[in-house]
Amino acid sequence: MSHTQERPRSMAEADFPDGELRLFGLLGDPVSQVRAPFPATQLMRDAGANAALLPFHVPVEHLASIFASLCHIGNLDGLVITVPHKVAMAGLVEVLSPRAQLVGAINLARREPDGRWRGEIMDGVGFARGLTLSEFDPAGREVLVIGAGGVGSAIAVELARAGAFVRIFDISAPRALALADRLRQAGFDAAMAERLEPAGAALIVNATPLGMRSDDPMPMDPGLLDASVLVAEVVMKPTVTRFLKAAADRGCRTQLGEAVMLHQLPAMVDFLLSRGDPA
Amino acid sequence: MSHTQERPRSMAEADFPDGELRLFGLLGDPVSQVRAPFPATQLMRDAGANAALLPFHVPVEHLASIFASLCHIGNLDGLVITVPHKVAMAGLVEVLSPRAQLVGAINLARREPDGRWRGEIMDGVGFARGLTLSEFDPAGREVLVIGAGGVGSAIAVELARAGAFVRIFDISAPRALALADRLRQAGFDAAMAERLEPAGAALIVNATPLGMRSDDPMPMDPGLLDASVLVAEVVMKPTVTRFLKAAADRGCRTQLGEAVMLHQLPAMVDFLLSRGDPA
Repeated sequence: MSHTQERPRSMAEADFPDGELRLFGLLGDPVSQVRAPFPATQLMRDAGANAALLPFHVPVEHLASIFASLCHIGNLDGLVITVPHKVAMAGLVEVLSPRAQLVGAINLARREPDGRWRGEIMDGVGFARGLTLSEFDPAGREVLVIGAGGVGSAIAVELARAGAFVRIFDISAPRALALADRLRQAGFDAAMAERLEPAGAALIVNATPLGMRSDDPMPMDPGLLDASVLVAEVVMKPTVTRFLKAAADRGCRTQLGEAVMLHQLPAMVDFLLSRGDPA
Repeated sequence: MSHTQERPRSMAEADFPDGELRLFGLLGDPVSQVRAPFPATQLMRDAGANAALLPFHVPVEHLASIFASLCHIGNLDGLVITVPHKVAMAGLVEVLSPRAQLVGAINLARREPDGRWRGEIMDGVGFARGLTLSEFDPAGREVLVIGAGGVGSAIAVELARAGAFVRIFDISAPRALALADRLRQAGFDAAMAERLEPAGAALIVNATPLGMRSDDPMPMDPGLLDASVLVAEVVMKPTVTRFLKAAADRGCRTQLGEAVMLHQLPAMVDFLLSRGDPA
């Protein structure tokens, strides 16, 4: 099934990298902040695959041509996709999982045995698993997702599937509206948030890149936050953004951005190595 | 000068791979047999560069488009080029070293500070260093190079520069003739070999890929070899080809194909990290 070569002897003892390495690329712009390459590579090699996840710094204007070329590299079996390529990549792969069709973005792609590329999105899966570990149940709760890009859409979809009423804010109102409409058409409870305020939300998620740079404005005025709200972040570097720090200062519980990646990492590696799709 | 990021702390202790990794690709078809990725990566990291050399399996028909795309990957700083791409790549980079101009092929390319790609060829350099270590001096000797492709041309150029009379055989007579003519026009002593026989050669070099596959025919009838001849190989895997074994059985001294790579590896890494060009 998988193009990924497996060998019986321990990959921990093998030369790394060698000529038989199977490549998995992580496409982003920027890419230096990503954390997945090391732990994902460890998981792959622990699983007996002579493989590695490597950062590829891909500018937006060259994404389509670079992806077309990467498809022709014989030992490149899969991709992890991060900001700002998740939505565009959903339009470049040949097959989308049902979840990816609903989200309209992918963060994973793999070459199938028939040569076609299949896209999947797991950002919401990792995020929801993080909530479960924090013992926060979204069922019947109002939640506010700030940012309707790739990761925001993925999180909104998972929260909707878990039974939450999902309000979505984006600086582009049409983008927020489109996502809310898509969710409602799929039978979920969702609406565009007209204003950037907590209202009745029990969970507020920053699903924008704001916070990656030290001079970024905060995604929302933390002065509006009530201590009962759980505040979650998708920015992974810095580990604690200014927004999370401000929320914690107001007494809010918080979920770090790295939860999105940490909790999806094993499932992501299984998908890339063609060992299973998410539930 | 270099785009390669360097950090003061030891790369041996750093997570590998991480998001700040600088990529160097080894382009070939096939590529699984290459040995450079592990030792070259070790040399780079020992030198303090957060870098790795990784195999890229690139089919001939996609070389130009893949190279064009790789140029747009922001953290890809250089390439090692192997069979069958060395001649084609010389036509794709913007600048050629004087040696690469004469050889008409490259096995290295790097992104210069001005963004242009510079090509270099070091196969002959490593090969000639191997001869020196074997205490074989080509000056004033007749030598026979079988194969006028990238590595054959590089070796012929270095042997000519060292003062040998270089005879060149290729299954394509025009290709052998073109290389001999180019050498003569540059003031060296060279001729096309009409027939595949040792004649007065003190050194015979298999510079073809024959021997990589177990069912390959031998590049030359070993029954013609005299025990006084030094027989050298460029095929690296298997370490000892059938041709080398047959030559050794006839009493010939031999030079392994891996000499080409082993003896050029430090110079290659210096070039890729922009720490110096070969003499």
